[in-house]
Amino acid sequence: MGGKKVYLDNSAATRLDERVLEAMRPVYFENYAVATSEFAYTQGIEARETLDSARGVIGGYLGAAGDEIIFTSGSTESSNLALLGAVKASRKKSGHIIVSAIEDFPVLNSAKALEKQGYKVTYLPVDKEGFVGADDLKRAITDDTIIVSIQHANQEIGTIQEIKTLAEITKEKAALFHTDATHTFRRVRLDVSEVPADLITMSGHTIHGPRGAGALYVRKKTPLKKILHGGFQEFDLRPGVEDIASAVGFAAAASLVTDGETAGLASLRDALTEKVFREIPEVTLNGPKDRRLPQNANITFHYVEGETVTLHLDMHGIAVSTGSACFSKSLEGSHVIMGIGGNHERAHGSIRFTFGRFNSADEIDYLVPVLKKIVEQLRKLSPIAADKFKGKG
Amino acid sequence: MGGKKVYLDNSAATRLDERVLEAMRPVYFENYAVATSEFAYTQGIEARETLDSARGVIGGYLGAAGDEIIFTSGSTESSNLALLGAVKASRKKSGHIIVSAIEDFPVLNSAKALEKQGYKVTYLPVDKEGFVGADDLKRAITDDTIIVSIQHANQEIGTIQEIKTLAEITKEKAALFHTDATHTFRRVRLDVSEVPADLITMSGHTIHGPRGAGALYVRKKTPLKKILHGGFQEFDLRPGVEDIASAVGFAAAASLVTDGETAGLASLRDALTEKVFREIPEVTLNGPKDRRLPQNANITFHYVEGETVTLHLDMHGIAVSTGSACFSKSLEGSHVIMGIGGNHERAHGSIRFTFGRFNSADEIDYLVPVLKKIVEQLRKLSPIAADKFKGKG
Repeated sequence: MGGKKVYLDNSAATRLDERVLEAMRPVYFENYAVATSEFAYTQGIEARETLDSARGVIGGYLGAAGDEIIFTSGSTESSNLALLGAVKASRKKSGHIIVSAIEDFPVLNSAKALEKQGYKVTYLPVDKEGFVGADDLKRAITDDTIIVSIQHANQEIGTIQEIKTLAEITKEKAALFHTDATHTFRRVRLDVSEVPADLITMSGHTIHGPRGAGALYVRKKTPLKKILHGGFQEFDLRPGVEDIASAVGFAAAASLVTDGETAGLASLRDALTEKVFREIPEVTLNGPKDRRLPQNANITFHYVEGETVTLHLDMHGIAVSTGSACFSKSLEGSHVIMGIGGNHERAHGSIRFTFGRFNSADEIDYLVPVLKKIVEQLRKLSPIAADKFKGKG
Repeated sequence: MGGKKVYLDNSAATRLDERVLEAMRPVYFENYAVATSEFAYTQGIEARETLDSARGVIGGYLGAAGDEIIFTSGSTESSNLALLGAVKASRKKSGHIIVSAIEDFPVLNSAKALEKQGYKVTYLPVDKEGFVGADDLKRAITDDTIIVSIQHANQEIGTIQEIKTLAEITKEKAALFHTDATHTFRRVRLDVSEVPADLITMSGHTIHGPRGAGALYVRKKTPLKKILHGGFQEFDLRPGVEDIASAVGFAAAASLVTDGETAGLASLRDALTEKVFREIPEVTLNGPKDRRLPQNANITFHYVEGETVTLHLDMHGIAVSTGSACFSKSLEGSHVIMGIGGNHERAHGSIRFTFGRFNSADEIDYLVPVLKKIVEQLRKLSPIAADKFKGKG
């Protein structure tokens, strides 16, 4: 596979689908007006209708109405709007916020920012597979709780939370429930007629849609205030000239995902996991075996550094992500692996594999022998592992 | 011109250029990895280099370094980051902010939001052509002033401020100077080696680049804190997976603008203005004749409603913007026309014409006779104007 690039990192889900761009083209070149109210000129009204149609598509996949969907610049902004906007709209002056300890950075760092402002924040622990316990939430929630934010599935280890139960517990206490569905939207079913979530973060670029295209589901009558200031767009919740092309691209991307395709990704993931466990000793699956994101595998290769494995795989044209926080420019271990009770060794040896529409079984056949050889060689060089693996491989 | 659509509203500057999309395509389909640090895999490093190259292009047109450019989701977010982020980073606890009275909504409403939080805000008046007086700024600025935000050119009436003088006055008092250059970037020269601005808002979609692509120039060592929480992207000033395709599109759009083209837009604008003044009586140019945006004309047609003219022009396939705040869903007159001393009649009768790369002299020849007829007919029907214009036209 000389020269071939194999994307099994985040990018695997990120590559734009050509059909998405085709859906965006008419907005770029034909119907490119700025959206206006219904009392303005034809081009502006057509633009507005195009935008609202995209809204309807996204909403439809959640069982929601189109006008419950706010378009944003991505899941980071959506989660910020959910947490900061809910707190702004709350009448409780020094309220309480609950998040899980393994949230992705937009939720986690929004909570930390609110904590600095004087709000009380509870970081719910998770079990060894990454699950938030319903009893832990019950114990933590109080009458002062403004919002509970627990992700639908984890970004690193793929754990799919019991979101219905957690949302129901939250609603019993009249707090708002937000879930970050960045990695589950269109891959794992979530219907707002069954799950009483008030706010849901979604992203286009995790399903082969454009980056810079996010959305926030806002259940009707949810108290929420905008966090950026400007015009009155998006039901006065998100200012700025609407990026209609991206909204249309996001809707097209959502429409292209099928249950059959998602099942195929789960099969690829299972094939990889089984092959790795068969071929390479001393590995640990991070996150649950079932009830995990169909497109995600996360494996610790003990006695090696994930970052080093990454660099060696790169020489073979293979991209994977390390479980540790490589984007944070710090050397801290992943807060997710640490959150499920892992130590630094387990965190630093973890590698995350992500599967998307453009991956194939061939790539797994190419990857595993390469990976096996790299891990064997690194273990021979490792002072800790040297004794253990001497003479093997 | 049956069936032809003539865009002389905001959309005229907004239509994507095909060459911009061509520049974006490789990022969508070939080099689509998530940007990573220099210690990661090849695809991620290439993505990072592509992003930084776009940064360099944008910076270059301001005389700035690439690493002084932060990519955002658009000018609304850029201006919010400038004002809210500067205030957050300031050590002055109850500081002072100065903006002009005719700023666009992102700056104006950020200032109003800060005012609600307890900051003191001075809204500088403008003269009858929209200019901020240097003496007014000198009188308003104090040792408590954290930031002065005065736009480079006005969004409605096109007034280009004496930005160098205003920035210099600001720097004498050691306050930060921000300018909203949404409508001037690449159309009106602005060089940070000559103008001591600390923060500059820019937008891709006003120069035929993609929407959802904005930037903020941040002069080195400017105290600024991020306003959205999440990852550590964009020098830890703007979290979220980078939308590299949009950044590349923005840079491509900036590169396609030439001084010759901009001079051509000014000629179209002058041709329209002269023809309207020759053909239609009782009209007023809003904003200065010279020292205005090359792509902008704003004319009040007295004794008629701009909104009504818009609807009639629409029947002829022509899109223009009303000067009044049609996007605000209110019936208030434009704060800009009111700001230059106009009354409600002048504000409601104002129409804004915007010119872009895809407009032509033919369109003006088509527009003016149609506009003349519409204005004549409406004036005949107007109870106020009936006596004045009876028997004419």
